[in-house]
Parts: sequence; C-alpha cells; structure tokens
Amino acid sequence: MKKYLARAAVFALSAPIIMPVAAQDAEQKGAQSPGQIVDAAPASDWVTIAVEDLLVMTLAADTEGNPIQVVIQLMPAPFSQGWIDNIRTLAGAKWWDGTSINRVQDNYVVQWGDASEEKPLPEGLKVMGESDYVIEDSTMADTEANWEATHNVGFSEFSFIDSLDPTRLSTGYADEEYVFAGWPFAANKGEAWPTHCYGMVGVARNYSPDTGTGAELYAVIGHAPRHLDRNIALVGRVIEGMEHLSSLPRGKGELGFYGEDELDKRVSIVSIRMGNSISESDAPAFEYLSTESETFARYADARANRRDPFFIVPAGGADICNIPVPIRRVATD
Amino acid sequence: MKKYLARAAVFALSAPIIMPVAAQDAEQKGAQSPGQIVDAAPASDWVTIAVEDLLVMTLAADTEGNPIQVVIQLMPAPFSQGWIDNIRTLAGAKWWDGTSINRVQDNYVVQWGDASEEKPLPEGLKVMGESDYVIEDSTMADTEANWEATHNVGFSEFSFIDSLDPTRLSTGYADEEYVFAGWPFAANKGEAWPTHCYGMVGVARNYSPDTGTGAELYAVIGHAPRHLDRNIALVGRVIEGMEHLSSLPRGKGELGFYGEDELDKRVSIVSIRMGNSISESDAPAFEYLSTESETFARYADARANRRDPFFIVPAGGADICNIPVPIRRVATD
Repeated sequence: MKKYLARAAVFALSAPIIMPVAAQDAEQKGAQSPGQIVDAAPASDWVTIAVEDLLVMTLAADTEGNPIQVVIQLMPAPFSQGWIDNIRTLAGAKWWDGTSINRVQDNYVVQWGDASEEKPLPEGLKVMGESDYVIEDSTMADTEANWEATHNVGFSEFSFIDSLDPTRLSTGYADEEYVFAGWPFAANKGEAWPTHCYGMVGVARNYSPDTGTGAELYAVIGHAPRHLDRNIALVGRVIEGMEHLSSLPRGKGELGFYGEDELDKRVSIVSIRMGNSISESDAPAFEYLSTESETFARYADARANRRDPFFIVPAGGADICNIPVPIRRVATD
Repeated sequence: MKKYLARAAVFALSAPIIMPVAAQDAEQKGAQSPGQIVDAAPASDWVTIAVEDLLVMTLAADTEGNPIQVVIQLMPAPFSQGWIDNIRTLAGAKWWDGTSINRVQDNYVVQWGDASEEKPLPEGLKVMGESDYVIEDSTMADTEANWEATHNVGFSEFSFIDSLDPTRLSTGYADEEYVFAGWPFAANKGEAWPTHCYGMVGVARNYSPDTGTGAELYAVIGHAPRHLDRNIALVGRVIEGMEHLSSLPRGKGELGFYGEDELDKRVSIVSIRMGNSISESDAPAFEYLSTESETFARYADARANRRDPFFIVPAGGADICNIPVPIRRVATD
C-alpha cells in the first residue's frame, strides 16, 4: 500500500485541473449542477461495464403486474473475489430462484437469501478469511498494472483528490478515501478496502470467524454504515432498480427481519442470473463515468461545492458516499 | 461563536471519561453494543421532550386499515424559530389537513404539503431570511444560558467530543461537529447550524432569496445530504414512524415528484397537530438520552468503535450522522 498512498499524495500536489473555489464563486451564476456536468460528458468519458460483472435479480411482479428487476455490478479484482466467485457459482446453479427478501431494516439494509437456512448450497464454494476484507500492500503491487490492462485506467491526474482539498475528505474512518476505477475506497496503514455507501451490496455472515459464502446478500438502504467496513465483505453495488429494495416495507422483527405474523411481506426472488448467461438481446448494458476523467473531477468538485442556482453556500467538502459514481443504462442493439 | 468553539476545545482537552481504545480492546469480549449501553442507562439520563415541541402527523390508513402516525420533534431555540412559529400557526389552522405527500426521491427526501400550490396560507406567517439558516456569535452568547435554564443542560464534560479524537469526527463540512442538548450541530467560522442527517425535517423552498414558509416540509430518507446544510432551514426530526415515510414508493417524475400517471400514489394527510393540542390521554410522550450524560459518551464511543461480538475491526471514528441521539416512547398515565 505504500506505493498506492504515495501516488495519492503526488496527485494531491499536482496542478489542479479545477479552478480554486474562490475563482469559481465569482462565476457562481449559471454554474452547472453535478447532473448537468455529467450529462455534458463526451462519449469517451463513459466506460462499458462488462456484462460478465452484472448480476440480474428478477423479483415477483408488483401488484400491478409489472416485472421488477434489480441490477447489481460486481466489484473488480482484486477485491472480494472469492465471495464473487461463489456468487457466480450460486447464480449459475440457479440457487436463489424461489428464495426471498427476508429482512428490511430502516436506515440500514435489505437482505435476501434462503429464509429456511436449510437449502443445500452448491458444491465447491470457497471459504474466505477475514483478512480478505482488505487488500494488503503485497496484493496492491500487481493491482495497478492489472487494472490498467483490464479496465483501461491509469490512476490519472484527474483522480478526484486533485480537485478537492484532501483534508476536506476525511470522514474519520481512514487516512485516505478516494474513488478510482469506478469505485469508492478507503485506505489506512497499508490496507485498502471498499466502503459501505448507499446501494453497496455485501455478504451477510454469522459471528466471527464466519465470513459468509455469498448466498446471503444485503444492500445498504440508509446512511452509510461505515462501521461495517472491514467487518463484512462488500461484493458490488446496485446500479438499477434500487428503489425496488429501498421502498419495501420494514420488518417488525428483530434486526428488521419479517416477523412470524408478516411473512407475506417477503418478496419472492424469481431468479438471479449473471448478465452473460442472459441472451444478448435481453441482457442489460451499462456504462460508468470514468473516475479518471476530467468530467468526473468537475462532477466531484461540484458535489462538494454546489454552485448551481438553488444553492447559496457551497459545503466546501463532501464525504466519499456523497460523490456516487454516475452510471447509465445504454441501449443494446 | 468564539466562546462556543473555545468551550468545545476545552472539552477535548478535559480528562476523558472513556477508557482509551487500546485498553478497551483488551476487554473486547463481551463488550456492549451501542443499543445495550442505551438500554442500561439510568432513568435520570433520559430527558422529557416537551409535548409542545411535538408535531403529530396522521396519514391515511394503510391497505390493511391500520392508522399511520409519524411524530416529529421540533428544534429548540434559537435555531429556525421563525419557521417553527409558522409551523405552529399552520398546525393550529389545520392547514395541512387534506394535503398530501407529493415527492419521494430515492436516497434523498420525502416531501409533503399542498400539491395544488394554490391553497391560501394562514395570515401572519413570518418571512425568514437566509441568514437565519445559521446562528451567529451574537445569538450564541445567550444560547448557553437559555438552554441551561430551559433544557437543563450544561454543555457538560460528558459531551461526546470528550470520548472521541476530534480529528476523527471531521466530515469535511465544518471545523467542528458535535451533539448537545439532544441535537447534532456543525460549526465553522463563527456560525453554527443543525445538520442534515437521516430523518431530519426541513423547509422546502423555491430559488433564493425565497426561504420557504414551513408549509412545504421534507424528511431526509437517504445518506445525509450535507450539501443542504446552511442552504435550507432544518426545523426538526422524525422521532417515530420514519418507516412510513422511507418505504413509500418513489416518484417517477422529476426530482421524485409523483408524475401525472401516478398521482394515486400520493398519500393523504389526515391531519397534522401540535402535541399539546391533542387530548392528554391521546398525546404521545417521548424522552431523549441526555447528550450530556456519561451514558451518551459511552454510546457515542461504541458507535465509533464497535466492540460487541459481531465486529472484528472498530472503525476508529464516526461521522455525526452515524451517532443518532437515542429517543424512546414512554407510557402516558
């Protein structure tokens, strides 16, 4: 991680691409909103999300008969890959078909899986260790080269720490927090890990040393529960259909599980499939805004310092969960 | 505000009531969860919430015929009092009866009021200025004495900044963030203001210099939108029934307003009443955990450093919105 942190420090010192706040304040009138900045991004700033990294969850139709779909993007290597391999195995075995959403705790998580806890798991699932919640120095040594090769990123000078005073990004959880290769991360003392922001998906587990298999998953539906960082494996994030999870009725049982008298509130999971197992014409396609683009740097700066007409006082900073990476659905031919 | 900030600094230097993290880690096994710490609080640590500060919202019954009630606690003086006076006037005039919830934007806000925007407002509403979003030095000079007299608080040595490294509390939004008299605040450059955390209630407005009357209100239902701090008036927080707002179907129109083809999703507001206008036997009663108590200091420390059995790595910090003030309903005789 030393190399990683050193690089981050260099970026913080590099010439900012963004005008200082004072200069921008002078131009406040007519300033673009974060959404307008993203809408104006050139096509070259958008990066295709590999269909192999999509997890498509189909829920029971709503009361009006509308099909309900939630799409999750899985994290790239080297983070949480053992659990993600298990998720690919479980989806391939159609293991989740007929399971349900069993827990909805307000301002916390929605959780799904086998309510009976007796459904046999597929063979060959990996057993992961607690040390796999983070990435160590030794792993990071290869990560940069791998990501440059496979994700076409270069930890470029437009990384969002360029555009903001780093002291204004601390949330008390880590020495460094930043976004790159399309994901939010924190780093501290030679380790890095993904962060529990709204919509992130993690692996439910029992008491330590259990780390979960990936068969029980949850999505964050409230204020970022950062105390879960490094305590549970994050494996991805909801990129479409989040509202179908966040608007579910809250469970009245302990921890938000549906109680015995409200089991009819469990939503049935029709299927969960990997994107690349779906026929090409039906598979959804998505792009994310390159977090190494100049557009992203301007977007991050605008999230931290709103100057569009509604706002009168720019915040002067933002926590990492308030700078969500823009993602859009694209048409498939 | 200098006095205010100076006092905070003194507290940070005073002898901590909490064991250092290292010492506590040695006792990790069997450590209490934040909830267990709160449950064990002596009765003397709980402070009655004045019934005059409660706003009771009754929504149309759900599909099963259950009555739906949401209770809001209004902020104490000197914050946002002009808007709060308006809210008392509006509730007294039964102005909200027959209005509706018109906007539900995922990971942002639920908003209610008169969808037609044509309902005449009661006479005598105050017009507030943007400078009233914050409290200045000169106002704070009297605040401490007022609050000590009316809320029985003493900015005591058990303020939560005692128990945590202040450098671990910054979220990039202000120089100081802390909780006292039962509420979360940020302070910076001679000003203090309440913070947009989950469940906080604010006054919707049009473009500056409009500041809203209080007739259109919103509650935060996602990750803390701290960029709204100092840009909109916060007037209170939901203390019961939050799940009835957060689980509403998201609007498909712009900004999460319900679109023309989904107006049936608007939830009708049967009534909104001040707690002290409700007959004594029907009025709800609540208490908050004194934020000046030793119990609160231990609770805040446990939120920032989870050591109960599920956790393996304490976060080492918390942002102010992850240390919600515990509130409980109490029986009325």
